[in-house]
Amino acid sequence: MRKLMQHCNVSACIIPSSDPHLSEYVAAHWKRREWISGFEGSAGTVVVLQEQAGLWTDSRYFLQAEMQLTDSGILLFKEGLSGTPDYQTWLISNLPEGTVIGIDGTVFSTHDVEKMKKRFSSAGLVLKTDFIPFSESWVNLPPLPQNSVFIYNEKFAGSSCSEKINQIRQKITEAKADATLLTGLDEVAWAFNIRGTDVEYNPVTIAYAMITTDAACIFIDKKKLPSEVISYFNQYNIKVFPYTSVCNFLSELPAGYRILIDKQKVNFALFDAIPTYVSIVERNSPISMLKAIKNEVEIAGTKNAVLKDGVALTHAFYWLEKELEAGRRVTELSFAEKLSVCRTQQKDFFSESFPTITGYAAKGAIVHCITTPENDTEIRPGNLFLVDSGGNYLDGTTDITRTIVVGEATAQQKKDYTNVLKGHIALASAKFPEGTRGVQLDAFARQFLWNECLNYGHGTGHGIGHFLSVHEGPQNIRIKDNGVELQPNMLLSNEPGLYRTGEYGIRLENMVLVKEYKKTSFGCFFEFETLSLFPFDTALIDEKLLSGKEREWVNNYHQMVYDKLSPFLPEEERSWLMGKISLDFTNYF
Amino acid sequence: MRKLMQHCNVSACIIPSSDPHLSEYVAAHWKRREWISGFEGSAGTVVVLQEQAGLWTDSRYFLQAEMQLTDSGILLFKEGLSGTPDYQTWLISNLPEGTVIGIDGTVFSTHDVEKMKKRFSSAGLVLKTDFIPFSESWVNLPPLPQNSVFIYNEKFAGSSCSEKINQIRQKITEAKADATLLTGLDEVAWAFNIRGTDVEYNPVTIAYAMITTDAACIFIDKKKLPSEVISYFNQYNIKVFPYTSVCNFLSELPAGYRILIDKQKVNFALFDAIPTYVSIVERNSPISMLKAIKNEVEIAGTKNAVLKDGVALTHAFYWLEKELEAGRRVTELSFAEKLSVCRTQQKDFFSESFPTITGYAAKGAIVHCITTPENDTEIRPGNLFLVDSGGNYLDGTTDITRTIVVGEATAQQKKDYTNVLKGHIALASAKFPEGTRGVQLDAFARQFLWNECLNYGHGTGHGIGHFLSVHEGPQNIRIKDNGVELQPNMLLSNEPGLYRTGEYGIRLENMVLVKEYKKTSFGCFFEFETLSLFPFDTALIDEKLLSGKEREWVNNYHQMVYDKLSPFLPEEERSWLMGKISLDFTNYF
Repeated sequence: MRKLMQHCNVSACIIPSSDPHLSEYVAAHWKRREWISGFEGSAGTVVVLQEQAGLWTDSRYFLQAEMQLTDSGILLFKEGLSGTPDYQTWLISNLPEGTVIGIDGTVFSTHDVEKMKKRFSSAGLVLKTDFIPFSESWVNLPPLPQNSVFIYNEKFAGSSCSEKINQIRQKITEAKADATLLTGLDEVAWAFNIRGTDVEYNPVTIAYAMITTDAACIFIDKKKLPSEVISYFNQYNIKVFPYTSVCNFLSELPAGYRILIDKQKVNFALFDAIPTYVSIVERNSPISMLKAIKNEVEIAGTKNAVLKDGVALTHAFYWLEKELEAGRRVTELSFAEKLSVCRTQQKDFFSESFPTITGYAAKGAIVHCITTPENDTEIRPGNLFLVDSGGNYLDGTTDITRTIVVGEATAQQKKDYTNVLKGHIALASAKFPEGTRGVQLDAFARQFLWNECLNYGHGTGHGIGHFLSVHEGPQNIRIKDNGVELQPNMLLSNEPGLYRTGEYGIRLENMVLVKEYKKTSFGCFFEFETLSLFPFDTALIDEKLLSGKEREWVNNYHQMVYDKLSPFLPEEERSWLMGKISLDFTNYF
Repeated sequence: MRKLMQHCNVSACIIPSSDPHLSEYVAAHWKRREWISGFEGSAGTVVVLQEQAGLWTDSRYFLQAEMQLTDSGILLFKEGLSGTPDYQTWLISNLPEGTVIGIDGTVFSTHDVEKMKKRFSSAGLVLKTDFIPFSESWVNLPPLPQNSVFIYNEKFAGSSCSEKINQIRQKITEAKADATLLTGLDEVAWAFNIRGTDVEYNPVTIAYAMITTDAACIFIDKKKLPSEVISYFNQYNIKVFPYTSVCNFLSELPAGYRILIDKQKVNFALFDAIPTYVSIVERNSPISMLKAIKNEVEIAGTKNAVLKDGVALTHAFYWLEKELEAGRRVTELSFAEKLSVCRTQQKDFFSESFPTITGYAAKGAIVHCITTPENDTEIRPGNLFLVDSGGNYLDGTTDITRTIVVGEATAQQKKDYTNVLKGHIALASAKFPEGTRGVQLDAFARQFLWNECLNYGHGTGHGIGHFLSVHEGPQNIRIKDNGVELQPNMLLSNEPGLYRTGEYGIRLENMVLVKEYKKTSFGCFFEFETLSLFPFDTALIDEKLLSGKEREWVNNYHQMVYDKLSPFLPEEERSWLMGKISLDFTNYF
């Protein structure tokens, strides 16, 4: 690759994690950053110069990246730590003026490219946006996936394809535009009620779409469409074009046409293909917002999905306890496999919604570490065990994290766990006025950790798709402000954590739904409804640190968990669960 | 004015509150919005069309504006309420395409004009930026103030004019610029250690300044400079130019020159005067940030100023109680006068830092209502009395709000007051990591109100100048994110409130200083030190609603108040104060 760079007179090359749809999880075909660096985390950017190279990633992946970059010659830059320059600043200070930086414009958002161009050019650097660094060096490049598309039943979606297209058309008209481009794989899947298996963990198919005031087009490889999908598209008047023709299509838009574009979601190569005589109407993607606000069928389905998830978790954790009691060896991987089997047995289970994270002891402090046979660790008494997992059920996507103690908890473990739990409760029980953004609530979940000079480096909450991506926007609960107001029927995670490097990790995650709470003369107030169903580990709760209200919250939550799960559990698990839900029960394993 | 608009073919005219320095408090010469509308609040914008007119203001002023706009024919638009369009949206929906909107570019920031231009032009409207709507109609236009400038002693400023100019030059060099323009009146005063009396409540003089890598210029009317100030400027090599010559000066900058500009602080007319062959280096004003981080002398001076303020408040509230006990009539105005006298008696007192707000009963719910002889109300048992006041002392500027009950408090008053206090305490005792912005902490102060479906419409905290403007940036604690991180030695207010229209208002405001708390492996953590010294009204505290930690906070704070104030109080006030600080003391009046 460095030879190619030299040949093309490119001094630096930036390789992000994303694909042309700016997805978080990408098909192997686009795992360029992983291929060049060996680092497998879901987020990270590699920058290659002739004499040096660097990887930028966030605190979730510091430890994993350190391990996976060993002997790679790639420096690790820890994002979010004071003193770490962002990669653009680093490039500016490492490159002489007049130098060319190469990127592949298809895997960067228009927004990012425009900002980068401005910044680099004011530093005298040139950004080349059509530099494809892999064409020669990546010999065994995996092909684009070609898996079949299937129709997502309206009884799960709660809204038909034509209703959704109409909703989108209304947004197009409101913006005084003629059309909008759908680039996110989950946006295309949502709008047309179709799903696929092109990407691991996300039931999506690789496609673009364009919806105009009077037409709907999908850009997809025809080979992926079974006959029933073709007739379905015919029925809804959705025209099918080749996947690779989208750029040409855009370049042929007529003069005076007005296209609604979200520059954060449309890659630069697509944007660049739009002729200058076409007007760009810049807006946040209306599809993201429509998709984020769940309908009643989706909410009922999600409640059913978390119930099945809770049953599966109960089976798995009950099994773990019994295995350990019997002196049998259980490892992170064998537990993950058991949990996977328990989920698979549930009705309408489709796939896991992301790779299960099972972090025993110090591994739990590697926020999103993936366990492999090489680093698989036995679960033994004397430390904490963190399990972050979820399922894609036809009726909804789930995401839940629990941390348990195996054996006796230390005082520090209990204090840490309780402070994380207090933050979880503070957010879960918050009331807040209409118009509130996630950034305003984020500190509720962190305050008890901050009081102890502790913190966690990831966001507190992300949106969750419906039988779609486990991470979706636009809403979130994070330190950074994205301007999106929380609205009723938005689904989010509530997941504070704490990670002590070399010791253990704690994360407590439930799914929450935004609901209207009350209307008063002071305005309309919202609250969260906690959906996920599995008890917290009472053996890790230091009751002295809980206020009366917090204790009441835990007891009420545990009672709900028991009431909802117990009808679906065998007798022995039911009484086991009963033992878990009392705050007076302090001997978990 | 409508005639002039017709004559100039201008269909709408926008009249903001600001002056060419974009000040909050402006000299009478620039009180155009007040003159045209009769509305006297510090924030508001009037829009005039041929057939209608509107005033936009925020919740602090809803009630006041309603009263003052009566029979004016000007509609009131309540900003921040859902359903209220901003004035630009309103103009777009009320004006036909092709229409011209006129503004005076000298009283709008470049940032605002650029945004407005973009927005109006995409709606087919034309923005004319040199429409001066008052030249003919305002007959008795007050002249520009001509008051003398004086030197601010370095023993109070803690840093010399040359040190400050060097700090600014360093920022200019860091930004690779040749110069920067100082447009804020407080920026000019801070940089040169000069003060004046051109604007009520803000000890500033009307001037611009320009600092280059090797020169410093002030644009000011020479008549305002006594001989000692002229020699002082000579001593520091500060060249003096006429106030009105700044535009010419900018228009004559040489080609290739690089000027650092904060588009939020430089008015559009100035910006427009800069030739296009001059490079604009866009940055947040480095002077704002330098000014916001107080030096040790400023901090010690501020601590002395709040002490004097506390003594003055004790004198005044003691007097109030004795007057009422003696059956004498006290009104909002007579109390404000008494308080003013008590402040005036303090060492190095210069002026009040803003118009004292004395709101008895329903008047307290008018957030920033100014009491006049016409609406002056007697302070009688049976309701709450809110007093928001502050002083400019040579050693520092203060800002404090207390709310007391006169007579017996109702259960609702106690509950409301306690919930406001709990928010105040939550913010005052927060620990937070380096990098935290005010927006992340704002909800700490609101949470207990939100739980009761209550809220307040103003910000929770603003920066405070040093013998300068009582409101200064860039840091704040608000719902809106301005991206500014809180840093040690920044001074802020902590002022949650609650306003029940027609009943009473509550606001509890102290000044707080950001301090380093602890450095751990999780980073550096900050905390606030509360500076203001006056007890909260224990008769309004519902102790049952306080946690153990909150009670401890109040007791510790009260103990500090007593320890610091008592040496400066006469015997009877000392024992009166002792009676006020015990949480067990429940009978304030």
